[in-house]
This record gives sequence, C-alpha cells and structure tokens, in this order.
Amino acid sequence: MQLQIALDRLPLDDAVRLATSVQQYADVIEVGTSLTKEFGVESVKRMRQALPQAQILADIKTNDEARYEFELYFAAGADIATVMGTAPSASIKTCLDVTRERGKQVMIDLLETSPERQQELLVYREAIFGVHVSKDVQEAGGAEAVPIVSRIPSWAAERKVAIAGGIGLNDIPALRERLPTLIVVVGSAITGAADPVAAARAFATALEPQRKERP
Amino acid sequence: MQLQIALDRLPLDDAVRLATSVQQYADVIEVGTSLTKEFGVESVKRMRQALPQAQILADIKTNDEARYEFELYFAAGADIATVMGTAPSASIKTCLDVTRERGKQVMIDLLETSPERQQELLVYREAIFGVHVSKDVQEAGGAEAVPIVSRIPSWAAERKVAIAGGIGLNDIPALRERLPTLIVVVGSAITGAADPVAAARAFATALEPQRKERP
Repeated sequence: MQLQIALDRLPLDDAVRLATSVQQYADVIEVGTSLTKEFGVESVKRMRQALPQAQILADIKTNDEARYEFELYFAAGADIATVMGTAPSASIKTCLDVTRERGKQVMIDLLETSPERQQELLVYREAIFGVHVSKDVQEAGGAEAVPIVSRIPSWAAERKVAIAGGIGLNDIPALRERLPTLIVVVGSAITGAADPVAAARAFATALEPQRKERP
Repeated sequence: MQLQIALDRLPLDDAVRLATSVQQYADVIEVGTSLTKEFGVESVKRMRQALPQAQILADIKTNDEARYEFELYFAAGADIATVMGTAPSASIKTCLDVTRERGKQVMIDLLETSPERQQELLVYREAIFGVHVSKDVQEAGGAEAVPIVSRIPSWAAERKVAIAGGIGLNDIPALRERLPTLIVVVGSAITGAADPVAAARAFATALEPQRKERP
C-alpha cells in the first residue's frame, strides 16, 4: 500500500514545513484543493522547491479548461493532477492527453459519479481513480454509516485506486486485507495530530510493516 | 439584460487593467476559473482593490469544502461565488447557507447536470443558475451544432439565469427575445477584441439599447 499525505487548510509556510517533516513517510505529497484555491499555482511551486524529490499531487479538481489547468500545474512541478469524473468527457480526455504528453499522471476524482459513469471512465486504464467521501458529507455525518472498506468499488483490483475521507489508523488493516495495492490518502489524522511526524510514521508502518525509512 | 464580463487566461495585472477599462459597461466582473487556479484568492483581492464598486464574481467552481472556499472568497471581496451543480448536495446546501449568512450571492454551475438534477437544484430560488457549454466542448466543436438560444432551459423564466460559452454580438437579439432577464456572460469576444472597450460598449448597447453609461 502507498501513503498519500494531504495538506489542507493551512498557511502555505506551515503546509510546506509540515510536508518537509513527514515526506520520508509519504509516497505522495498532496497539495490539497484548499491550498490551490487559496494560493494558486504558487502552492505547488513552493512545495516543489522544498521537496525536489517528492511525488507531488495537485488536487486541482479540474472541471473545464483541462489543457490550461493541467499544463499550468504540471509546469509548476506537479507529478499528478486531478480532474473531476463529473467533468465533460471532452475535458477528461484532454487531461489524459496532456498527462501522456508530459509523462505525468492523472487522478480521476469519482466524487458524485454514478456506477455507469465509473464504467465509462475505466477505459482510462492508466489513470488513478480517487474514491472518497467528500469533506462536506463527512461533516454532515453521512460518512459514519458507511464502513470505509465498502467504499472500495468492485472493479478496484483492476485499476490503481486511491481512497480518502477521514481515514484513521484503525481503518488500515481492513483496507489492506481488501486491496493491498491501495493508495491511502490521509489528511487530518496526520496533519492535525499533536505529533504529525509520529503519526505519519505510524501510518507508514501500518501500511507497509516491512517498509524501510527513506533518507 | 445584464452583461457579465469574464476575465480568463491572462496575467493578473493585465486582467485587472482590462477589467478597469471595461467596468463601466459591465454589471458583473467575473474573475474566471483560470485566474483563481493560477493566482488563488489574490486574483479576487486585487480585482476588489482596483474596482471597489464593481460586482465581482469569483468562478471558483466549488466541488467540496464549501464553507472554507466560499468564506475565503467572500472575505477576499467576491460578491458572487460559484459551486458545481454536480457537487454533493451537502456542499451545495452549505454554499447557500454561507451565502445567506454573508449577504452575498451564489451561482450554481449547471455544467454536466441532468434535467433531473436541475429540478432538484431549482429549490434554491435565490441562486443564479449558470448555463453554459464548457470551453473544452466548444474547442472540440460540440457547441456549434447547438443554437445558443436552445441552451436556455425551459424553466429559465422562473429563476435568475446566466448564459455563457462563446457568445458573440450576433447572438444577443435572439437571446433578448427569448429571455429579457438573462445575464449574458462574455469573455473572449471582449477580452480578445482588438479594442476591448469598444467591444464591451457594443455588447452593453446591444443588451440594453437605452442604457446610460456609468461614471
């Protein structure tokens, strides 16, 4: 399993400092939507400067103007950018085209997509598929009724899938049992912890008990 | 009819300068998604500083974290912010709540919404509904087959509706005949014109032949 650590709703300096401190435990550092909305492309540029070796995901949630947005964020240093699965099919196809041209990666965010729409999107075999309960639905209490493992779609073993949405350390064993190739996206359980470095280490160890720390 | 002038894909200085030069013809100045994606909340702050009297729309296309994003952009000086009609219902409801609390306005972007979804969203009587052909669909040539007037939904007279997507001066008479209360969103036909001020004046005159210029 892989660990994606999401930075959100922080001053940019704090986000960069926090990412720097936990990067040895992260396979992917996510510059969250809140950072891109507040600081624009500077959020990714700053993260790239501070973390030249990291895999950086820019959660820009493109809905339109796909080429412009993807080229902008790839040029700023993102390795992975996100597009909404609810965006027009022409936009999603363009995201895939730009991603191939630049030798980068794309995540298709399945928020509010129907099972039929998901089937259409699965033709993009090289994409990462992002499955999550939205933060607003979490806050409205709608997430608790649904066990986290049940959010993993039936086709997940055939594609690269990332799962996000209020994931805690206790969720990891069931997720690993269900799908050992998952990318697990963790935000506040690390960034909001009293000791984020210890929390990141705990997640990394739970995900890959044999994992070696990186330099 | 009202004229909303959309600024997109420009250096921020140029966007602010252009908005300043055409504001007397605009009912709403739109800080386009491309500017918010590139420059973040600074795009709206700068526009607000330069245009203290303007109605400013921030086309942030919220998909999640509705309260955070709406409060951020309202605090920066936006009068109107946008949320995707494809976002979770909990997010859209939160956008409406924040908008009411702050005494602002919300536009629900109907991109890729089904007629059934549109009916659900119409309960938000105070919202502006944004109807448009996406830029990516325009560029893929999918817009030309559809006459612009036919994009106006059947329920449009019962709500405040803005229409966008490659609108030219020649489209105005048919739009006015169909729905005189429309907000018409014009981007490149003004911002890409050899003389944007003359183009803005021409649109404003076509929309409201009796209109008086503002100081």
